[in-house]
Formats: sequence, C-alpha cells, structure tokens
Amino acid sequence: MNSQLNGVISHIRPVSREWRQKARDYLSRLAIPRGSLGELLVLAEQLSGIRETLKPSVSKKAVVTMAGDHGVVREGVSAFPREVTPQMVNNFVLGGAAINVLAETAGARVVVVDMGVAADLGTLVKEGKILSYKIDHGTRNMARGPAMTREQARRAVESGIEIAGKLVREGVELLATGDMGIGNTTPSSAILAVLSGRPVRQVTGRGTGISDQALENKVRAIEKAIEVNRPDARDPVDVLAKVGGFEIGGIAGVILGAAYHRVPVLVDGFISTAGALLARALAPDSVEYMIAAHRSLEYGHQFMLEELGLSPLLNLNLRLGEGTGAALAMNIVEAAAQVMGKMLTFEDAGVDGPGG
Amino acid sequence: MNSQLNGVISHIRPVSREWRQKARDYLSRLAIPRGSLGELLVLAEQLSGIRETLKPSVSKKAVVTMAGDHGVVREGVSAFPREVTPQMVNNFVLGGAAINVLAETAGARVVVVDMGVAADLGTLVKEGKILSYKIDHGTRNMARGPAMTREQARRAVESGIEIAGKLVREGVELLATGDMGIGNTTPSSAILAVLSGRPVRQVTGRGTGISDQALENKVRAIEKAIEVNRPDARDPVDVLAKVGGFEIGGIAGVILGAAYHRVPVLVDGFISTAGALLARALAPDSVEYMIAAHRSLEYGHQFMLEELGLSPLLNLNLRLGEGTGAALAMNIVEAAAQVMGKMLTFEDAGVDGPGG
Repeated sequence: MNSQLNGVISHIRPVSREWRQKARDYLSRLAIPRGSLGELLVLAEQLSGIRETLKPSVSKKAVVTMAGDHGVVREGVSAFPREVTPQMVNNFVLGGAAINVLAETAGARVVVVDMGVAADLGTLVKEGKILSYKIDHGTRNMARGPAMTREQARRAVESGIEIAGKLVREGVELLATGDMGIGNTTPSSAILAVLSGRPVRQVTGRGTGISDQALENKVRAIEKAIEVNRPDARDPVDVLAKVGGFEIGGIAGVILGAAYHRVPVLVDGFISTAGALLARALAPDSVEYMIAAHRSLEYGHQFMLEELGLSPLLNLNLRLGEGTGAALAMNIVEAAAQVMGKMLTFEDAGVDGPGG
Repeated sequence: MNSQLNGVISHIRPVSREWRQKARDYLSRLAIPRGSLGELLVLAEQLSGIRETLKPSVSKKAVVTMAGDHGVVREGVSAFPREVTPQMVNNFVLGGAAINVLAETAGARVVVVDMGVAADLGTLVKEGKILSYKIDHGTRNMARGPAMTREQARRAVESGIEIAGKLVREGVELLATGDMGIGNTTPSSAILAVLSGRPVRQVTGRGTGISDQALENKVRAIEKAIEVNRPDARDPVDVLAKVGGFEIGGIAGVILGAAYHRVPVLVDGFISTAGALLARALAPDSVEYMIAAHRSLEYGHQFMLEELGLSPLLNLNLRLGEGTGAALAMNIVEAAAQVMGKMLTFEDAGVDGPGG
C-alpha cells in the first residue's frame, strides 16, 4: 500500500465519544417524551460526534455519482447494453436523471465523475460538466483475470479521497455516494461474497431486472472470477483489483475521505455499500462516519448492511443507484441536525416533564 | 347526520383511474430500469390520480396540528400531567417544538388549532398565533359516559373540513395531520378497538412511555368506556362521540376535507391514523387521498395501517405525534412529484432501453 492512501487511513479516528455523550445529555432535555424522535435522535448524536459540536450543520450537501464500465458484461450479466453508461452520464449532465431531480429536491449538488467509462467523455470534461479521474476505458473481464491492476485499484480509491477533500474544502458538510455503471452489481456481489464469506448465489440478485439465464451467467461469472483470481479477503486493495470496479473504488475513497475530514457520508444502495465494505476493511473506524441511506431491493444489500452493522433510514423498494436513495435521505439527516440546533428544552419551553 | 357533513361525504369520489393509468404509462417510459424507483412511482401515480395531471405540484404544504384534552386522564392513563397540552401549544407558538423544526425543514407551515384544550388560549387566538375551533374545555371522562355529545362530535369533524377548505383556498397542495393532547392515545386505541373488533389489550400501548400500572389503568379505562357507552361500530360519529376526542374528530375532518377538495393528505402516527379510521368509515373513498407517513413505535399503529390497507413511507421509530412523521415524509412526496414533473424519458434522454 503506498503512502498517500496509507497516510489517510492511518489518520481516520473514531467519532468523538465525548461529543456523543454531550449530545445525548442535551437531547434528553428536549421537550419531548424520552426517545420519542427515534432514529432522528440517533442521527443527531452521530452528527454531533462527527462534527464535535452541539449545532452540527449539514446544509451544504453534495452527491458524488461515480461512473465506470465493466469488462464482465461480456459474460451476459446485464439487462442493459454497455452504451447506457455514457448515455446516462449524458443524462446526468442534461439534468434529466432521477439523481438530478432528487438532489435538487434535497438542495444538494450532483458531482458526476468519470472513473472509467468505456467511452470518450472529453467534451463533457472540458465543458466542466463532469470530473475526470478516468483510470481506463472500463475494467477487464474479471471472469478471465483481474479486473484491474493493484496500482489502478489504489488510484481509484485515492481519486475518491481527493474528490471528497476538494468538496470539503469547498464547504460541503454532508457527502453522499452514488454510482452509474452497466454491470456493476456483478463486482459488488463479488466483493460482498469475498469479504463476507457468503456463497456467491446467496448474494447475487437481479440488478436492473435480468432474466433467469442472465442470473445464471452472473453467478457463474462471479464464481469464476473468484476461482481465477483468488482475491485475498484480508487485503481490500487486492479484492478491489481482482473483482471490483473503478467507480466502486472511487466510492470507497469518498467514504474514506469523508471520515478523514470528519464529515458524515450517506451511503446509497448496493454498489455504494460494496464501496463501504472496502472502506471499512481499509479503515475500520470509517464506519462511524457512514449513514446507510436506504435498504435496496437488490437482495444482497441486507447482508452488506448486516456486515457493517448499519440500519438504513429508508425502505422504499428502490433499486436504481445513482445516489438516489442517498439524496432522498438527506432531508432526514438535515432534520436531525435541526432537531439538535433549534428545538427548545423542557426548561426553556416551560413544559412540565413526565410525572410532573 | 346533519346536511353539512353529509354533503361533503356524499361528494367524495375515488381518485381518477384514468389519470392513474396515464401516469403509469408515462412513468414506464422514464430512463430507469422498470419500477426501480419503488414507492416513489407508487406515490407519483397516486398524486397524478388525485390532482388529475401528469405534473402534480405539492410545493405549498401545511401541517394542521390539532390540540385537545381528555377527561379520561383522570383514570391515570398518561405519564404527563394535563397541563402539558397548553404548554406544548405555547411551545408550538414559540417555534421550539419538533413539529416547528421539521415543518420548517420541509418548507411547510404549521397551523395549530385549539379543538378543545382545557385551558384558556384566547390570547394566542387574538394574536393570530393559533386557530380556535374550541368545542369544550377537554372531553368528559369516557370511562364514565360519552366523551362528548353527538352534536360536538359532528362539529369536531366539520371544523376539520372547514380548516382543510380554508387552506386549500389559500393554495395549499399537500396537507398533513398532527395532534397534541395529553392522554390521546387512550381514545385512539378505543377507536381502533371498536372499528377493528380487536381486543382492547392488543391495541393498547405505552403512549409517551407509561408504567405497567398506568398501562393496566389504560386498558381498564378503555374496556370500561366501551362497556358503559356501547359505541356503534357502524356509526362513526357515535364512536367519536362516545370514545373519541375533539382533536381526533378534527383530524378526521381535515382528511375528509382533503379528499373533498382532491388534495393529498399525509397521515401522521397513531392519533392521526385513528382520525383516518373514522374518515374512512364516514367516506370509504377518502382512503385513496391518504398517504401514511410513517409506522409509529406505538404498538397498535400497525393494526390501523393494516385496517386501512396503507403502507407507511417511513419507519424511524417515532412516537411523538404533533405531525412530526408527516412533516418528515413531505420531502418524499415532493420528490415523487418532481420525478413525474422533471425526469426525462428513454427517448428524450437518448438512452437505450433494456436488451437494446
């Protein structure tokens, strides 16, 4: 592991226990029956611990939507053709995709990143419409060899760290991850299988809605990828290199960058949570900065959340990606911050407590 | 039943099947894998059916928080003293309560209504800080006789209808219900028991967090109320009069008013959903205008949602009331409207469909 990635990882610390406790004490004095705001209180405490303040602000928000292509689509694992990845990047730029609409509703900006789309997106980059951290024109077919080199895997993660750092310096207080990449539930399932030790078939679902035949292809491709490459579960960079994807590495990096800069990060669905598994494997304390946005309909997502010990805020049967679930959950995180910042206590509001 | 209430009820129609179908057709052409936005698509279709347009707007929003007191608190059913009801109304006016903070985050106004608080709130009414539809200084103790007269019950519902109408005329496009009233989980459980036929013990929970002893008192008070008053499950006004509350009647009225004016209405937690049960009993089609905001931690709430056939948008372990869950869910409803209004289709975005 080179020193830049290593340096960041070694500086990731747990969330402040002291500020969590201060927040808990404060929240217990709000003029509500004890605990009656449920998950909002849990979130408020987490935000205080992360930001080390009783008035955490998350008003400046960004969704980082990472795009990449996957050589494994040649195994017939996806319902959509690979051309859809650059077409959807273009749709993000037009502002007509779900992530645009949901981020706008949440008051967040969308940062689209070419991590490795198999098409020339140079014009969009030059026009400043997307960022380019392009590592290659898609990964190689992991069913026949490593998806990328170890060096590329490291660069993917470091790119995400760099992007998070840039956004935090621009004032972003709440980050969210998102993905676009035809075929990317396949590497995500592979990462989950390797890191959790679960059987491939158990963690492999229908992605955008594939046929029985494509599902068989997908299970077989993942099994072959693991057999051919023998990824080392104790070495997350090796796992990413052998059975991962550029955008998944980038997402892991955004999460590590958020933890390094002590900023909360909303983790979207199946692909993003594969990135979160890698981030946690690289820096165990990073999980304390994560907020699971939603429970995806993609079957394996529940196992990822279980591995991470996270409970999702929303359960709306989403299975789109792009960062859509994370954008939808931003409002809940903002509400939790406002509960900390603006509510009155029993004393200040002149309200009697229980049994008073 | 007098003619005003009857008139409204007889004019409540099902949501437009034609516009639901148009919305379904349109949504199936959006540039996403079929159905991948889950509940947002279900909501978008409902909004189109209610508003009879493919571009439903829910940008102007209001939470109606109805306050009332309950004679049954004399049976020792609540953790908080009755004085907390007017104290919390005052907190709403100060802007320091959870509903203020969450409604502000959602971009909604809060309309606080005195439906029957056992205190003089005349000053707040004169200052224009709250609306007064005060029916009495709290209900009577339902364990010893009817909570209110039949005439009062009808007035409570009509008040809610009137408030909904006023807000719709002011341009409100999305209504939400909320409640404040020490002791009001007790009549809510009673209404649920009567309308569902379930045993009182099964539908009675700990409200704001009562002791084992208070829970026993509560179950007994509800059983006594049903025994003494013999509410007629086929006559919702009779149920409200005998075992209900002024704010619960008001909430039922807001929901009926929303349905009458063809405006969607977010139903908050346990107390609001008791109101929704009465609204549905009065006008079965009104249920098509309801959106269940969240699943409350109050045990009986699941049975209410089951009775209504509604699945809640959020599950955040809330059990506060005030309209807090409804305010939190507003953003999701707005997101659904934006999905209809602003996303591009496969064709417009130049994105290939599956198998393309």
